[in-house]
Amino acid sequence: MKAADPSYHSKVRESFNQQKLMSLFNATLTDIEPGICEIRMPFSPHLTQQNGYLHAGAIASIADSAAGYAALSLAPIGASVLTTEYKINLLSPAIGETFRAAARVLKAGRTLNVVICDVFGIDGSDEKHCAFLVATIMTLQAKSIDTDG
Amino acid sequence: MKAADPSYHSKVRESFNQQKLMSLFNATLTDIEPGICEIRMPFSPHLTQQNGYLHAGAIASIADSAAGYAALSLAPIGASVLTTEYKINLLSPAIGETFRAAARVLKAGRTLNVVICDVFGIDGSDEKHCAFLVATIMTLQAKSIDTDG
Amino acid sequence: MKAADPSYHSKVRESFNQQKLMSLFNATLTDIEPGICEIRMPFSPHLTQQNGYLHAGAIASIADSAAGYAALSLAPIGASVLTTEYKINLLSPAIGETFRAAARVLKAGRTLNVVICDVFGIDGSDEKHCAFLVATIMTLQAKSIDTDG
Amino acid sequence: MKAADPSYHSKVRESFNQQKLMSLFNATLTDIEPGICEIRMPFSPHLTQQNGYLHAGAIASIADSAAGYAALSLAPIGASVLTTEYKINLLSPAIGETFRAAARVLKAGRTLNVVICDVFGIDGSDEKHCAFLVATIMTLQAKSIDTDG
Repeated sequence: MKAADPSYHSKVRESFNQQKLMSLFNATLTDIEPGICEIRMPFSPHLTQQNGYLHAGAIASIADSAAGYAALSLAPIGASVLTTEYKINLLSPAIGETFRAAARVLKAGRTLNVVICDVFGIDGSDEKHCAFLVATIMTLQAKSIDTDG
Repeated sequence: MKAADPSYHSKVRESFNQQKLMSLFNATLTDIEPGICEIRMPFSPHLTQQNGYLHAGAIASIADSAAGYAALSLAPIGASVLTTEYKINLLSPAIGETFRAAARVLKAGRTLNVVICDVFGIDGSDEKHCAFLVATIMTLQAKSIDTDG
Repeated sequence: MKAADPSYHSKVRESFNQQKLMSLFNATLTDIEPGICEIRMPFSPHLTQQNGYLHAGAIASIADSAAGYAALSLAPIGASVLTTEYKINLLSPAIGETFRAAARVLKAGRTLNVVICDVFGIDGSDEKHCAFLVATIMTLQAKSIDTDG
Repeated sequence: MKAADPSYHSKVRESFNQQKLMSLFNATLTDIEPGICEIRMPFSPHLTQQNGYLHAGAIASIADSAAGYAALSLAPIGASVLTTEYKINLLSPAIGETFRAAARVLKAGRTLNVVICDVFGIDGSDEKHCAFLVATIMTLQAKSIDTDG
């Protein structure tokens, strides 16, 4: 896949840095290439559900952001993106020291992009597949407003 | 719908209080009835995405928790629940002073429950429908382990 | 909800009549109003899965068509619609003499519409909820091409 | 992945042969291995939507069946499977002389399996990715009844 905007790298990083939820979660953008994005987040006891595992909401948050930025990496100059819907399957308990969300664009359209994202829980050298997300990301051209109103 | 466990109310509240992510989000459990659950969360600049709206991940987190507790309210004594998958449609930007996630069980099965949840952004007396979630919640009987391993 | 095209009724019926799969399934369009569509289909042994129940694919087909036409009823003159994705939950075995798919638009946007559809199996006076679908339907304005290519 | 039932091959074929909808669609089971299933279906003007492309319902039907049999190939002796939900993204118009649904199990659990399926439209030597499905398939052990009632 090819980036339409040569400065896609800085565009994605600037947008990511504005996502306060990512800061709250101590998440970092660890890879961005045309059609690909990776976000990592350390385990934190503040992000857990009732059994002490990471809450699915935290897993879904980094997967959704990674999917959006994978799509943004392919968008034209001045365009932005918007998640319109996603589905997430929780494959195993979210256990790990670190979590890695790896997204890639499955289909890039003029208006809609279909993006998938795998999330892994990492313990030392062991990676376990803990979630799978598929999202529809809408590209909003430069003059569009930021909602489908 | 009827609760199988007469103490479902305290069971749900105890579990909710153990979800650290809900504390971090200042979310509160505002209603629990058999097959129904409502969670509210105030807007916070710490939970936003790049445009200053609430991040979809925060919206999805309270919707997922509300869906899980709507299912737990119907579960047998000693049983727990696990979200296996959900889909969320983001209907409008997550704008509001407060967000309200209202979940209800559509189908209660022996093993699987289908639960839907509407999320609204509230500004004064105005409520705007900002998200719709549908989830599959698994009931784990008392002796089950907490994963589908 | 209000129809933008006063001839939406005939527009939807003409399109429905061109869906050969609906003819093959003996499905009929039994209601169309702004934002609402109902399709009925009789049971047939030709449409079954391995246990003799209706195949989920037949259920999903009428639910998807009903969702699309609920959206088309609201579209501008000359516009067409396209299903971009849907999720279906199968709530109980598809048993019945007749099946009824009742769709309604949850959110109508300029480009994207979110539509839900309940499917019921009917035996005499008894209706059983057998499936729930939520779909994203794209509106293609008059000059658009018929794909998101 | 390993088959728990050494006669999984004949078990899957027998079940497939009982799906009358697959016969109606002239669909054939072209590959079955542990955790993998492929179904092919020729284009037919009887299976179309209003523009003459294959109806999404026909595409979803073969993808759903392929997903179910990918899961059944891993199930214990005497067990059966049931699709509880799926999501399908329609990536491009369903154009082709033949359609190929290729499913593989992403996560095999004791009770629930997550299966993905890609559908391609084939014209001569050209394959186009036209749909992506992700499904939750429930394994029903030998003594279970065939519904989650």
